[in-house]
Parts: sequence; structure tokens; C-alpha cells
Amino acid sequence: MSHDLLKGKRGVIFGALNDLSIAWKVAERAVEEGAVITLSNTPVAVRMGEVDVLAKKLNAEVIPADAASVEDLEIVFEKSVEILGGKIDFVLHSIGMSPNVRKKRTYDDLDYDLLEKTLDVSALSFHKMLQVAKKQDAIAQYGSVVALSYVAAQRTFFGYNDMADAKSLLESIARSFGYIYGREKNVRINTVSQSPTQTTAGSGIKGMNHLLDFSDRMSPLGNATAAECADYCITLFSDLTRKVTMQNLFHDGGFSSMGMSLRAMNLYSKALEEFCDEEGRIIYG
Amino acid sequence: MSHDLLKGKRGVIFGALNDLSIAWKVAERAVEEGAVITLSNTPVAVRMGEVDVLAKKLNAEVIPADAASVEDLEIVFEKSVEILGGKIDFVLHSIGMSPNVRKKRTYDDLDYDLLEKTLDVSALSFHKMLQVAKKQDAIAQYGSVVALSYVAAQRTFFGYNDMADAKSLLESIARSFGYIYGREKNVRINTVSQSPTQTTAGSGIKGMNHLLDFSDRMSPLGNATAAECADYCITLFSDLTRKVTMQNLFHDGGFSSMGMSLRAMNLYSKALEEFCDEEGRIIYG
Amino acid sequence: MSHDLLKGKRGVIFGALNDLSIAWKVAERAVEEGAVITLSNTPVAVRMGEVDVLAKKLNAEVIPADAASVEDLEIVFEKSVEILGGKIDFVLHSIGMSPNVRKKRTYDDLDYDLLEKTLDVSALSFHKMLQVAKKQDAIAQYGSVVALSYVAAQRTFFGYNDMADAKSLLESIARSFGYIYGREKNVRINTVSQSPTQTTAGSGIKGMNHLLDFSDRMSPLGNATAAECADYCITLFSDLTRKVTMQNLFHDGGFSSMGMSLRAMNLYSKALEEFCDEEGRIIYG
Amino acid sequence: MSHDLLKGKRGVIFGALNDLSIAWKVAERAVEEGAVITLSNTPVAVRMGEVDVLAKKLNAEVIPADAASVEDLEIVFEKSVEILGGKIDFVLHSIGMSPNVRKKRTYDDLDYDLLEKTLDVSALSFHKMLQVAKKQDAIAQYGSVVALSYVAAQRTFFGYNDMADAKSLLESIARSFGYIYGREKNVRINTVSQSPTQTTAGSGIKGMNHLLDFSDRMSPLGNATAAECADYCITLFSDLTRKVTMQNLFHDGGFSSMGMSLRAMNLYSKALEEFCDEEGRIIYG
Repeated sequence: MSHDLLKGKRGVIFGALNDLSIAWKVAERAVEEGAVITLSNTPVAVRMGEVDVLAKKLNAEVIPADAASVEDLEIVFEKSVEILGGKIDFVLHSIGMSPNVRKKRTYDDLDYDLLEKTLDVSALSFHKMLQVAKKQDAIAQYGSVVALSYVAAQRTFFGYNDMADAKSLLESIARSFGYIYGREKNVRINTVSQSPTQTTAGSGIKGMNHLLDFSDRMSPLGNATAAECADYCITLFSDLTRKVTMQNLFHDGGFSSMGMSLRAMNLYSKALEEFCDEEGRIIYG
Repeated sequence: MSHDLLKGKRGVIFGALNDLSIAWKVAERAVEEGAVITLSNTPVAVRMGEVDVLAKKLNAEVIPADAASVEDLEIVFEKSVEILGGKIDFVLHSIGMSPNVRKKRTYDDLDYDLLEKTLDVSALSFHKMLQVAKKQDAIAQYGSVVALSYVAAQRTFFGYNDMADAKSLLESIARSFGYIYGREKNVRINTVSQSPTQTTAGSGIKGMNHLLDFSDRMSPLGNATAAECADYCITLFSDLTRKVTMQNLFHDGGFSSMGMSLRAMNLYSKALEEFCDEEGRIIYG
Repeated sequence: MSHDLLKGKRGVIFGALNDLSIAWKVAERAVEEGAVITLSNTPVAVRMGEVDVLAKKLNAEVIPADAASVEDLEIVFEKSVEILGGKIDFVLHSIGMSPNVRKKRTYDDLDYDLLEKTLDVSALSFHKMLQVAKKQDAIAQYGSVVALSYVAAQRTFFGYNDMADAKSLLESIARSFGYIYGREKNVRINTVSQSPTQTTAGSGIKGMNHLLDFSDRMSPLGNATAAECADYCITLFSDLTRKVTMQNLFHDGGFSSMGMSLRAMNLYSKALEEFCDEEGRIIYG
Repeated sequence: MSHDLLKGKRGVIFGALNDLSIAWKVAERAVEEGAVITLSNTPVAVRMGEVDVLAKKLNAEVIPADAASVEDLEIVFEKSVEILGGKIDFVLHSIGMSPNVRKKRTYDDLDYDLLEKTLDVSALSFHKMLQVAKKQDAIAQYGSVVALSYVAAQRTFFGYNDMADAKSLLESIARSFGYIYGREKNVRINTVSQSPTQTTAGSGIKGMNHLLDFSDRMSPLGNATAAECADYCITLFSDLTRKVTMQNLFHDGGFSSMGMSLRAMNLYSKALEEFCDEEGRIIYG
């Protein structure tokens, strides 16, 4: 159901790959709420993904771009302003990738060229986006920019590897640039720290399923879905949140404020009890 | 402008005193967005304030209550459900008061009976509200509860005194009860940490004006107004934020993420320069 | 092994009950490091516990006191200064108790008289201690005060109940009073957020054992013991940490910065796998 | 005065330039506490600074190294183990530099090659250090690693520029690697967030003096000095803090927990009053 929350607004959405992507859902909801948008993703993703399907459906243009390339980003903002007929009101950054993870390099055996790549694509791309937009004066007064993050920026999750560092850097950039862009153009910049979400990348991985389960049982409201995240992003793009900036906002069913839930502990205890003696004492080894 | 964000929803607003109150603005905006509401404040506030004016304007009933009284709160929720014709979808807690501050007791000379009063009225009232509502099963599935807080819960501001401790306690209650009410009824509970706001209580106090100025110059977007806070609360009451819970959400123009802004430092430096020698060194004493 | 870190220092230790208590270990270590101390606990605890054994061993006097009683605290500080022959250099607050927990009142069914008691004993006692000491000018310049806390002040643990709110309040008091006592007397005030620790109170409770296990597997260094906590407190009482104040310091083997460890997840997965089909998908219900 | 806290321990200190450096003070104090150490700094710093003077005084060897070079770091750890006669017990990382700041590039006009350099030298060097050490198994069981940080990692300070992002990244690396190194070798890794400190680099800059003054007046205990920071680092290297890991520890006289002090506000108000009318209202424009 639409509330016309983004009526007349122009947006640029980075990172929609397929209908499991959060960016995909945000794009759909933004248009539903009255916005006109452009979509951007890497040339490879554009070729291999289904972005064109989405673009067609939303009557949006796709502008391929490597988000780590300043030149490409310049084109995205120039074209978007041109296509949409005015300055941009909102931007979504939903971009992250770790070649170290892909190549199964553990955190104590990182390849530093790949680490640079992780940080460049997943975090510095956000700075580049903002710097390019500001230099072009492409974002309208009171515009709103959101990047997606994860609680691993604050707490360590095994296996999340150098993406944790990338997310910390991303959140810092949101604060640093939020100050500058806020004081000069009233543009607000926030990160949304979302529940782990089943996407193409993660599906079928056993560890991922288990972590999703843990996260779900820990969170009093359960994991937030991609569709729910899209709803939340709409509020952040709307004029109703004009004084929220430089924040990392948890959209996670409560996970970030939990230490241990009864539901998660019950499952944990089930396994633990196999190691207990008759009086309930845990036997180690 | 209305977006029908709260269409068909029922709410209870605690703490509207006059048109400077944040609760007043929230009440107005909630009704504008399609909600029906009841208003509650202390019997004294109801007599002396202008709540009746608001109630008339919004076609809302006023239910006087001491928020520290379980019995009074029971009546508020019972009556509200009855009057509004169903379970409550959203609640605003905008209640705070320190008799120690009023009586000019400094933080190292607190009266402990008054401290108990500060905590009871400003923080425990929130727990009582939630416990009463839960026992009556008065809040609907996916309901949303917001309490107003201040950054003094995290960082010390001279003169804020025992209200800082009350706000810390309030935010803790939001987390603790957010877990319980979330897992059982999908009710979310958050606090909004709002910019210092000029209200009747604070007006005309020199120190207050100066702090407001500092806060404003520190915040890239400036201090958030009561009206803007109301807008933000609307998003938190709407169905678009269903997975946000147990959070303290800063609505403060960026203040909470600032260490020092150029604008604030420039003013500070002006005063400091009077204490500098010709080479710019600061002379102490 | 002693490093003479507290040579010539005078301390007051609240909360030693028996040799499982952290306060007990702190008392032993403080004396070992060259301090002279007094011990304080409730009259009941003094009668029923083994404080006298400790007192004898450490050549320390026991001053019974209800830490929620200003009058009793006045006596503790007066006598301590007198007995130890000068102003106090360090204080440990290791006091916490929830009658709601004892009476098995759940968090959504709290007795408010008992809640007041929880907060009074576990948190406001800390303010009273500091206010009494400051009024008597009983703490020496550059003195150090530590109160023991738990991560439940930041994140919700099922069953920790109103103690979570008490710990939040306690940590807020440390900040609020740390500002006042710091600017006037250079006294620093911190809280130490310690791993869950097996004490008399918690022993034998199945749920407690399981939580300790989870906490241990989550923490890269494992749970911190009472003895290790005592060592840490010594550093905070020493002159080597004179500029650390208003902080909540985690002494927890890393738990507070963990989202999920491999070791904890492995156990969790073991239980989860019973609910998985042959392809590793989790079957719900 | 020595407490023999590091008796028999071996350490590597990165970043001592001259006697204003924190690393310089840490080196002196570590040796005073009974440690043997090696010193490392960039070849340029070794040539231009006074590291040799320190080395002579402390009977320590200097191993020049570009901390961004894995090869150089390999040599530092190999040689240190060899020279000191065993595995390393503690490491200090006191390295930070922003060519963007030096070249006066503002945060919305960063040169991305220079940004990469800032991150590489100020943050990734820490990862490289740890990865190299772990691969060589050069750090002893229960070793302790500290990196110096600044509160700009959490809150934005105008002019701190991309160093803020570097410090966020640094603190994230401490957590991420703290998990790995902790679970495998009981090595703890923390960052110390130190007050702004007058060093050679910052001296004579008017803005820097003013920020130091603000920071000092905000902090109840005043700014922490380099010597005090060294004392604090000694406690973190000692065996008394073995369960503290993955933490960012503020050593800042309380600054990080302050919102506004009376002392800082008084100065601010002085300047503000020039803009006030006779009734104390602030006149804008």
C-alpha cells in the first residue's frame, strides 16, 4: 500500500541484483511511494542479473557502473539528474563484496591486494559516491542517503572476515561525510544495520542457515526481511526523518540489544545437555 | 500533509501540556495521519495546562492519571481501549520531572526521597505503563511504544542532574521490556533521544538558551524541533518500522555523533582568544 | 606476586561474602599489593558469611552496614578514615540483589516495592556511598572508585530481570558522579563489567551453568575469573590509571565485542542439526 | 617508580619519534618496569628523529621499517625475537598519518590515492603487524597488543578528516584480530583512545591549541598526558589485565563520557553573550 511518502522525489538505487536483494525491494517500494529512480550496478551484474526486468517493471533506467570508479559514479549522477529531471533526493548504497571471503582466505591470512579491494568496493565506494555527488551538487537540499550495514561492524562474527572492517569503515564514512554534507546542504547520511538476510550469495551455505537461525531466535521480533528493510528505508528517505543523521540504525528485530534470549538458549542447552552428568554439571573433555 | 500512515490506528499519548510540548505535536500529527487517540497527563497538568483545548481540537478524550500510579494507569488503558473501540496500536511516553532539580539540589547533595520520585515519575512510570498494558493485553499485535529520552543518558551534561540517571533507567526499561513484549506480542519498544527543546519549563533560563545554542552549532542539521520530532514518532508508530525494537534512536540533527563542529569551535575560540598572548598561546592564570 | 601497586593506600571494600566473592579476592589482592583496608557488608552477611575469617587474615576491620542506609555509610567512611589513619584512596562497590528475582517475579509482573529495593540496594547505594564520602571529604585526591557491573546493562539477557535496569542505573551514576568528583577532587569513578562468575548465589542452577558455558565459548579468552577481576581492579586502584574515569570497562575475555564465535556456534549447530532435513534445511515445526 | 610489572617481558614499540611521542614514553616506562624492547619506526623517522638517543638510553635496538610493508614487518618480528631472546610479550602500535591532511585536502575533496595511503599506514599496518606476528608465531601466549586511537573514531571532529575513518578501521581490526589471536594463543588486542596530545606535529597550530583547551575543559580530570598514557599502557601489557580484549579503552580524563561541562560552557557563554540582547536572548544575524 502506498502512502505517497516519496511523491515527486528522485532517487538512485545502487546494488539491485535480483528479487532477493534488499536494493531490489527498496527500488520497488520507492516507486510505489511515488518516486522516480535510476538503478545502478556493476556491468557484470547488469549482464548476469535480472536488473533489466526490474528496470522495465519500474520504468527506470539502468546505469552500469563500477562503484569504486569515480568516473563511473560521475556518469551515474550526471545521467540520473538528467533523466529524472532534477536533483536527487535519495540514494541507497547496497554494495559489499569480499574477494578474501570468496577465495577462502582466513582473517589471519588475508591477501592485502584483496583487502584493499574489499574496502574499496564495500566502503570507499560510499565516500566516492558522496564526494562525486557533492562536487556536482547533485543531491537536493534535505536529501537523504542510506547505506546498508551489519552488526559485525560492532561485534565480531566468525567467518565474516574483512567485511567487518569494511562495514566499520562504511559507518565511519557516513558520520564523517554526514557532518560535511549536513552543515552545507542539509543532506542526511545514515547506515541501516540490517538482520542477516538470505540472498543469492548466501543461500545453501550450511553455516549461513545456522547463523540465520541463531539470529532469528535471539531477536524478539525475529530477523527482519528484505521487504521490511525496504519499508524502513522509505521512512528514512521521506520528509518525516529530516533531523536523523550520522546514525547507524539497527533494523534487526532487536538482535543488537540482546545478550541471550530464552529461545536461543533453549536450543543451545539441548546440545549442551549431552555433555552433562546426572547432576547437570557440564563435563569438559 | 497527511500520508494516512496511522489510518485506523488507536493511540495513547502521555505528557501533552501545551503547544510547546512534543507530546502535543505528536498528538496533532497522529490524528492528522488518521489515528484516534486518548490523551493523559497528571490531574494538576490537566487543570493548569491547555490539554482540554487540544482534546477538543482533536476530538480526543483526556484521562487524567499520575503515571507513577499503577491504578491510574490501569484506568487509562481500560478506558482507552473502550473509548477507541479496540486494542491500542501506539503509545507515547513523554514524562519527566526532577524535584531535585526544581529544589536546586546539586548532584552531590541529592535528597533521596526526591531522587526516588525522579526515577519513579520519569522512568519507572514507563515500566508500569507497559506492565499494566501487558496484563490487560491492551496493546495490539505489532503495536509500537515510544518514550522520549535525551543524550544525557549516555554523556554527562552539567546541571542535568539526576534526570540523566532517570533517562538511563528509562532506556534500559525499553530494552528489557522490549524483549518480553516483542517475543510475546510483536510489540516494539524504543526510545527517541531528542535534541534539547525549548519548552515552557526551560524558557527564559539563560543556561538553557546557551546550551541550546551549543547543541545547535554542534549539530550539522541544527537542533530538531518538537514538530520534527512528532514527524519522526509517526514513522515509528507506522507499519513501516515493524522490526525496529529495543533501540535508542537519536533524533538530534547529528549532535550525538559530533565531537566538535567548526561552527561551535569558532564561537568557543572567540572567547578563548582573549586569553591568548600575541603568539596565540593560551595564558592560564 | 606483589608489585606494591597500592603501597601506602587505604581502601574500603564493600561486598565480600565468602571466598567465591569478587570483593573477597579484591580485598586479598589489595592487601597483598600493600594497602590497608576495611571491609563492609550487611549485618546479616557479616553474621552468616565468612567475612570475619577474611578480616582476621587481612588484619582488617569489618564495619557492618546496610549500603542503602546513608547513616550506616556515614559510619563506614568515618570509621574507615579513623581506623586506616587517613583519607581513603580506593573503594570497591560489589553489591547487587533483586528480591524480584528471588521471589521469581517475572519482568512483566514486577512488584514495585521490590523493584525499588533492587534499585536502592544495587544502584542508589553507589550514589549514597559517593555522596556520603564527598560530604565527609573522605576520599583522597586522585582516589579511585570501582563498582562491579554486567553486560546486561547494555544487552538483554532472559532472566536477568530488573537487575539489568539496576546495572544501567549504576553505570549512569558512575558517569554522573564521576564528572562532579573528578572536577573537584580528581577522584575517578568507573564500573567494571565482569564475566558472569560462579558465586554461591548462582551455583547449582542449571540455567546459570549453561549461560556460563555460552559466555565462555563466545569469549575468545574464556570467562574471566574472580581472581582475574581482582587483578584488574588493582590496576584501576593504582596510580597508573589516573586519567581513566566515567568508563564502563569490560573485563570479560572479549564477550562484549563478540557477535558469534565458532566454538559457540558449533555447539548451537549440534542441536540445530536434529531439526534439519537431509539437505541441511532447517525444518520448523 | 618501578613496580617490576613487565619484569622479564619482551616488547616491540612502533612509533617513537621524539620525547613528545607517546611511544617514546611507553618505551621508557616499559624498560623501567623491567622489560627489554626493540624500537621501530620508518627509515625517514629514524634518520630525522631522535630514536637513536632513546635506543642508547634504553639499551634497545632500532629496527627501521615501513609499517605498511609486510616484508619490513617480518624483519622487525624476526629480529626482535632473536635480539630479545624469545617470543614477544607486548607490542605498541602508535602509527598514524594522513597525506590528505598534510596536503590540506578537505574531506569532500579527498585524493583517493592518498586516502588509501592514510588507511594503509594508519590502520592496515596494524593488521599486517598482527598477521606477520601470528604467522611467525612471534607473540607469546598471553601476550598483549595495544594500538593508539582517538575518539574521532566514534564522533566527528572538524578537520580530523580521513584520520577518523582510519581510526574506526583500526579499532575494528583490533576486534576482528582479537577474536582470532585470543582463541588461538590467548593474545589480547585492544586500542587506547587517548586525549589529544601536544606532539611535534601539532604544536603551534592555533586550531590545535583551541581544541586541546576545549577537550581539557570538558574533561573532569583534564587531558591525559603522554606520560600518563604510558602508565596506562603498562597496565595493559602487565599480567594484571589478561582478560581484557577487543576493547577500545578511553584514557581521556572523562572526555568521552561528557556532553557538556560547566567549565567549557562558561567559556562558550562568554563569547555568546556578545550576541545577546539585554534580556539574555541570543540575537542571530
